[in-house]
Amino acid sequence: MPKTKQVKDSFTIMTEMIMPNDTNSLGNLMGGNLLRMMDIVGAICAQKHSNRIVVTASVDNVSFKKSIPLGYVVTLEAQVTRSFNSSMEVMVNVFSENIPAGTKENTNNAFLTFVAVDQSGRPIEVPELVPENDEQTELYNGALRRRQLRLVLGGRMKPDEATELRALFQI
Amino acid sequence: MPKTKQVKDSFTIMTEMIMPNDTNSLGNLMGGNLLRMMDIVGAICAQKHSNRIVVTASVDNVSFKKSIPLGYVVTLEAQVTRSFNSSMEVMVNVFSENIPAGTKENTNNAFLTFVAVDQSGRPIEVPELVPENDEQTELYNGALRRRQLRLVLGGRMKPDEATELRALFQI
Amino acid sequence: MPKTKQVKDSFTIMTEMIMPNDTNSLGNLMGGNLLRMMDIVGAICAQKHSNRIVVTASVDNVSFKKSIPLGYVVTLEAQVTRSFNSSMEVMVNVFSENIPAGTKENTNNAFLTFVAVDQSGRPIEVPELVPENDEQTELYNGALRRRQLRLVLGGRMKPDEATELRALFQI
Amino acid sequence: MPKTKQVKDSFTIMTEMIMPNDTNSLGNLMGGNLLRMMDIVGAICAQKHSNRIVVTASVDNVSFKKSIPLGYVVTLEAQVTRSFNSSMEVMVNVFSENIPAGTKENTNNAFLTFVAVDQSGRPIEVPELVPENDEQTELYNGALRRRQLRLVLGGRMKPDEATELRALFQI
Amino acid sequence: MPKTKQVKDSFTIMTEMIMPNDTNSLGNLMGGNLLRMMDIVGAICAQKHSNRIVVTASVDNVSFKKSIPLGYVVTLEAQVTRSFNSSMEVMVNVFSENIPAGTKENTNNAFLTFVAVDQSGRPIEVPELVPENDEQTELYNGALRRRQLRLVLGGRMKPDEATELRALFQI
Amino acid sequence: MPKTKQVKDSFTIMTEMIMPNDTNSLGNLMGGNLLRMMDIVGAICAQKHSNRIVVTASVDNVSFKKSIPLGYVVTLEAQVTRSFNSSMEVMVNVFSENIPAGTKENTNNAFLTFVAVDQSGRPIEVPELVPENDEQTELYNGALRRRQLRLVLGGRMKPDEATELRALFQI
Repeated sequence: MPKTKQVKDSFTIMTEMIMPNDTNSLGNLMGGNLLRMMDIVGAICAQKHSNRIVVTASVDNVSFKKSIPLGYVVTLEAQVTRSFNSSMEVMVNVFSENIPAGTKENTNNAFLTFVAVDQSGRPIEVPELVPENDEQTELYNGALRRRQLRLVLGGRMKPDEATELRALFQI
Repeated sequence: MPKTKQVKDSFTIMTEMIMPNDTNSLGNLMGGNLLRMMDIVGAICAQKHSNRIVVTASVDNVSFKKSIPLGYVVTLEAQVTRSFNSSMEVMVNVFSENIPAGTKENTNNAFLTFVAVDQSGRPIEVPELVPENDEQTELYNGALRRRQLRLVLGGRMKPDEATELRALFQI
Repeated sequence: MPKTKQVKDSFTIMTEMIMPNDTNSLGNLMGGNLLRMMDIVGAICAQKHSNRIVVTASVDNVSFKKSIPLGYVVTLEAQVTRSFNSSMEVMVNVFSENIPAGTKENTNNAFLTFVAVDQSGRPIEVPELVPENDEQTELYNGALRRRQLRLVLGGRMKPDEATELRALFQI
Repeated sequence: MPKTKQVKDSFTIMTEMIMPNDTNSLGNLMGGNLLRMMDIVGAICAQKHSNRIVVTASVDNVSFKKSIPLGYVVTLEAQVTRSFNSSMEVMVNVFSENIPAGTKENTNNAFLTFVAVDQSGRPIEVPELVPENDEQTELYNGALRRRQLRLVLGGRMKPDEATELRALFQI
Repeated sequence: MPKTKQVKDSFTIMTEMIMPNDTNSLGNLMGGNLLRMMDIVGAICAQKHSNRIVVTASVDNVSFKKSIPLGYVVTLEAQVTRSFNSSMEVMVNVFSENIPAGTKENTNNAFLTFVAVDQSGRPIEVPELVPENDEQTELYNGALRRRQLRLVLGGRMKPDEATELRALFQI
Repeated sequence: MPKTKQVKDSFTIMTEMIMPNDTNSLGNLMGGNLLRMMDIVGAICAQKHSNRIVVTASVDNVSFKKSIPLGYVVTLEAQVTRSFNSSMEVMVNVFSENIPAGTKENTNNAFLTFVAVDQSGRPIEVPELVPENDEQTELYNGALRRRQLRLVLGGRMKPDEATELRALFQI
């Protein structure tokens, strides 16, 4: 297995059509169903990066600003932003498309982390991600800050140790 | 409609058995399917508080520390922690139970926000939540901090305006 | 394992939102889908009482008097009414709620029986149920009569041996 | 619409293969999923008899004596046994088949009732069923007794008025 | 196992009601869902002929001339037309029924081939099909021509070796 | 709407993980479920080319040479090969990937046709497809031959009028 990998080695696209059972009483995609799609596309992407079975470790804050009606087409794009030993941060971008109307917009964006495991479910090392351009480098750098936020929110890091995160608040 | 409501007025319990299609290659519940259940129970709880149709506005950071195997029973408990005009923060606690083994543990905990809408999908005011004991009051107070974090992460508030959040970092 | 258990030890609540695929041509919950939910909540309840895997042995007469439309919330409450060696009778009550309208009613009521089995599927003894109040005692006593009716209908008991059942007809 | 119909005019066969998601922890078809299939095949049969939309009114006692494992083929045969104004009693027979082993058995048998409704959901008259042979006549005659049992169990008939049912107990 | 079998030994009928999630934006059954039903009924039929587990080898050209709306009843009839060593050609006829309107038509017709396999997935011989009447004989004879077309389209037979197929073009 | 479009304007990628309920008794993806995925990705692609709602008109011969086990990742790529008035031929290529093993292969290939329709379901004109390279031109040219085969097989063209098709047999 290679020691390093690039974003393009595991970039994953998933396209889905919104079916009746995906929708709520207003005829729009339910948030929980979109989260389920994000988890699947993210897991496939992390599998490709690690060539391992992966399990979801966390989902960062996701907001739902735009409703996505029945019959719309949803495209989810997943890319690894950084790896840490056995875990990988994956960014998932969601595009919602009303094809007959010719409109398409980026409705959601989320960061998920996955852990690569062996057949008995034990964490196992994954290749490093090497960013190749400015956008990827920015995502790579931001991953450290997001990781500290996860640790602080999960009660596994004291806020005053989260140096990267404190920088966000210009302290 | 009453102007205020209490936690018990909308407390909601959902019990599910993990079915084959909910699981991944290791035979454990996929993260995305648990997120979907959290969204549904949270939405029902917010509906009960507001007596309105609700849409998911956001899901805060969720972490998955324990795997939940096929055949386990999952109990999700949802309660409103605070309301803000037309939005409600709902806390969902997940308990995973291996009934034949007699074990049960609190595996996940998440905060979701829902917006009450009228039939045309426009936001509409909801009752205030009045906490009744210390635990509820703590959740009620923390809601402000979590809300600022959501706004900062969503780029809708500058970090230095997030006074409640800054307190978390003892600044 | 305890020799006896009480109703509250296994009382189970399941909450579901009616989704498009649960409905018939009139937009109402199909009877068969409600039966499926009753079976699942009943099985979880019987699992909790017996701390065993359980299989459905029978469902008593269920009637569907009220239609439950798309978007309604259904709450199913299951409780063990009595146990017999390796089998348990479970009562499931169904409440249908139109939350925006603020209405809620008890639409269905059913008795199911489950058998506790070991890993090879062989029946295995379960704790006795000890009723704690008048309502539970009445359900406990009625269980014998319902059991005789099941045996008569299943051709495993002659009608004139069904002493409890004959009492129903004041003979 | 004809005033009378025969069993063969609405006899319906449904064949299903047991899929992973239909099964419980022991790898067998869950009772609730079989009930769902019975309801669908029964509803199609009642639709054919009445040429109307139908809603499930009740399911009589169903017992599950034999487990049906993953990969088995299930055949459900539905026939109208008798009609009463706007309602129809339908008998559903379930056959479970292990095709590679060449075994097939009649595992379940149930009576369901359906009500024919117009587009606004109001009950509407259906054709009479005319039995054509001894077996059909026996089912036709028994329908009266089963109907009284349903009414007694549903609290809509006093046991001492259930003359047909009392005959069952040779009183 | 018998060396020969007849059409009636494995003739299979499947009846389904079109549910919301089976439909597209126009409220009609999606082609892909009908193909899925055809595959299942065809596989059950081929299982019955061979008393083996079967895997789908191919689906011939299927055309969708008529739309089938939500709430319609679909009946699929599958029959083996001919067997070749370990493979079987199965014809599936689809009938769409608007029961309240009393209309029924044959909307689709497809030929699928299945291969019988043992537990390790290796092809295994199946009984010969013996046609019993003119219609079955015509289907039996045509199977050779359809098989050559499959081989030519799959690049496994040169067009000028497809003698049966060439006859179709009266060459 | 543009009068012409290119392949890249509607090229669509769908990625799916094989879930338990997608599989047969041998634990492999059922043919019918793959056909369902092909239909969905093809329909999305045809929607993008036409900016219209589309309905499936036909699926050409599909063969299943390789089994795809549970947990594998399936990638479907769809591209329009040619348009004819209101119909579009779409080619779908299926790639099956065992990510932990690092293997990926092109397991299936199919041609589907879709018809663009307006809101009342009437066929409506679509943009012409303009091929941009040799591979696209070959697919574009072959579309005529495949179309004649569909018409002959569907009984809507006499074999001796199918000039393009006859050329296949070097007559």
